[in-house]
Amino acid sequence: METFSDGVIAILLTIMVLELKVPEGEHLSDLHNNWPILFSYVLSFVTIGIYWNNHHHMLRATERINGAVLWANLHLLFWLSLFSFATGWMGENHFARTPVALYGVVLLCAAVAYYILQTAILRELGPDSRLAKAVGRDLKGKASPLIYSAGILLTFVDRWLGVIAYGVVALMWLVPDRRLVPKAM
Amino acid sequence: METFSDGVIAILLTIMVLELKVPEGEHLSDLHNNWPILFSYVLSFVTIGIYWNNHHHMLRATERINGAVLWANLHLLFWLSLFSFATGWMGENHFARTPVALYGVVLLCAAVAYYILQTAILRELGPDSRLAKAVGRDLKGKASPLIYSAGILLTFVDRWLGVIAYGVVALMWLVPDRRLVPKAM
Amino acid sequence: METFSDGVIAILLTIMVLELKVPEGEHLSDLHNNWPILFSYVLSFVTIGIYWNNHHHMLRATERINGAVLWANLHLLFWLSLFSFATGWMGENHFARTPVALYGVVLLCAAVAYYILQTAILRELGPDSRLAKAVGRDLKGKASPLIYSAGILLTFVDRWLGVIAYGVVALMWLVPDRRLVPKAM
Amino acid sequence: METFSDGVIAILLTIMVLELKVPEGEHLSDLHNNWPILFSYVLSFVTIGIYWNNHHHMLRATERINGAVLWANLHLLFWLSLFSFATGWMGENHFARTPVALYGVVLLCAAVAYYILQTAILRELGPDSRLAKAVGRDLKGKASPLIYSAGILLTFVDRWLGVIAYGVVALMWLVPDRRLVPKAM
Repeated sequence: METFSDGVIAILLTIMVLELKVPEGEHLSDLHNNWPILFSYVLSFVTIGIYWNNHHHMLRATERINGAVLWANLHLLFWLSLFSFATGWMGENHFARTPVALYGVVLLCAAVAYYILQTAILRELGPDSRLAKAVGRDLKGKASPLIYSAGILLTFVDRWLGVIAYGVVALMWLVPDRRLVPKAM
Repeated sequence: METFSDGVIAILLTIMVLELKVPEGEHLSDLHNNWPILFSYVLSFVTIGIYWNNHHHMLRATERINGAVLWANLHLLFWLSLFSFATGWMGENHFARTPVALYGVVLLCAAVAYYILQTAILRELGPDSRLAKAVGRDLKGKASPLIYSAGILLTFVDRWLGVIAYGVVALMWLVPDRRLVPKAM
Repeated sequence: METFSDGVIAILLTIMVLELKVPEGEHLSDLHNNWPILFSYVLSFVTIGIYWNNHHHMLRATERINGAVLWANLHLLFWLSLFSFATGWMGENHFARTPVALYGVVLLCAAVAYYILQTAILRELGPDSRLAKAVGRDLKGKASPLIYSAGILLTFVDRWLGVIAYGVVALMWLVPDRRLVPKAM
Repeated sequence: METFSDGVIAILLTIMVLELKVPEGEHLSDLHNNWPILFSYVLSFVTIGIYWNNHHHMLRATERINGAVLWANLHLLFWLSLFSFATGWMGENHFARTPVALYGVVLLCAAVAYYILQTAILRELGPDSRLAKAVGRDLKGKASPLIYSAGILLTFVDRWLGVIAYGVVALMWLVPDRRLVPKAM
């Protein structure tokens, strides 16, 4: 399951770049439609990169799985697979409100799916497992869906507030904070 | 062969999302053409997920292969590779009759190809192998092509009856029923 | 190198199906442009399948590599990567003469690249290696480029003669003939 | 991390060929727009091939990693993922000045990202590690960004000078020179 998931995530990470369509003209100004797509691509690339890293380490620490874990994993991969679409729509419309909100919905669903997967694995492994201790209180994992939800609502105030909220979650996972929060995996 | 097949299935699972084309406008209403594609994508995603799971466990239990197994495996991958096309055509035409029937034909051919592969492996391993005992009478494996065939015919009565038949097969494999039917693999 | 090559070949096998574009209409007659693409896809799928199988077993038997082997391998992957383009062009033009000939040129270059790779590996391993004995006189490996060349020339007589020649090579590799020719790998 | 990176690079290498769009007509003259794309594809294919080879051997020699190495690796993969776009833009515009310069910028960023990754790994492993000795003074690694920078500037004199500079770097890595410079990895 680990190799398969790694493969799927590697492909998802890569095919997002296909949304960066080659423009018709040959001048820098012909790229004007590509900059917002590039920006949304960077955000998605970092987010998928974080998922890959956390997911990979979580599965590494998972000695045995059951049917629930398997389907929770496919459920997560499903939402990650929609990143490509959501990224393209947000970028091509230069971060218009509705696409930014929908992008947040996909982010939120993926975060919830990750939480479900983690819960299914912890239920299988038990509270004394190495993974359970590493996850601990899982402040980041619980905060992420909340911040995403806030971000989706904030797009109706100002769409950039939503984008900032999504970026804050990415930064939160990028910055290592071993003493404050137990390293998730 | 196991790694290669896993890789191919991972790619097939992922490139289906490329059929979800990014729409031109920026409003929710511009997604109207995407909902049926998303729905057909979910159905195909679950079906490929089931194939991956069963196929992976079957190959795990296969200690040795021969030429017949190898080509039976490629034959299965061929039909799975057509899911992307069939999914896109069914979704883009909002589940019109002919695309729904053709989608069923691809499902049927994949199910038959899986049965051929399983038979080729069991012939190589013999009736006392671990796999032969796990497969047992293989009620699910025999029922699936029958239900798919019925589904294809039912599209000519009502196209949604076909879709329901395809969904029933997916549910049948999702629900674990260890006591009633020996777990296939 | 083996895993990487397997991955590349798996992706090449799979992205060919993207040439099967979803048609606009919802009737069987709207697929009229897809049948020739499907036919050329089947031919390419089988050919890539044969390459994967032979290539995989050859690399398995290769205990050590050098720079020449590495680049000969990438050279082969390069020609295999052009199958997608050649398949699409041949299919979309309903097996017109020039696309059929070009398809043959790509087949020929891939066959020659495979021969170069095999030669580079045998030079590294020496004439007493297990692989050298398995390859033997390599009648199939030597006949394939000749038949492809004949097929390219025959397209100028009748384009279908070229297609038949390409199919003959595929069949030649599919049919096992252990007694006549030592199994190549 | 090694398998995941190999997978991503395999996909990047392969999806570049999707920029080779199938032309509408069936004559050789209809390919006129494809030759420059094919040429830029060859250049990118060789460059990615070199990255794969060097990257693969570097990670093989890396016994342990830390967070910095992980993100430096994703940073490299990000720039490699832009090859597909840059290759397509340069090819479709028949090597016009701006696309050639932008292609050089992507090459430069990837080379710098590789250098950062190597530095992060060497810092983790220490100066006495096997990798540190293999890398040595790393003349090639230091020369590549300089030649790319020169190439970008030279496109404003003549765009082909830029292309030649990019090709020189590729050749520099292709030609083995074990005695002059310690083999990088």
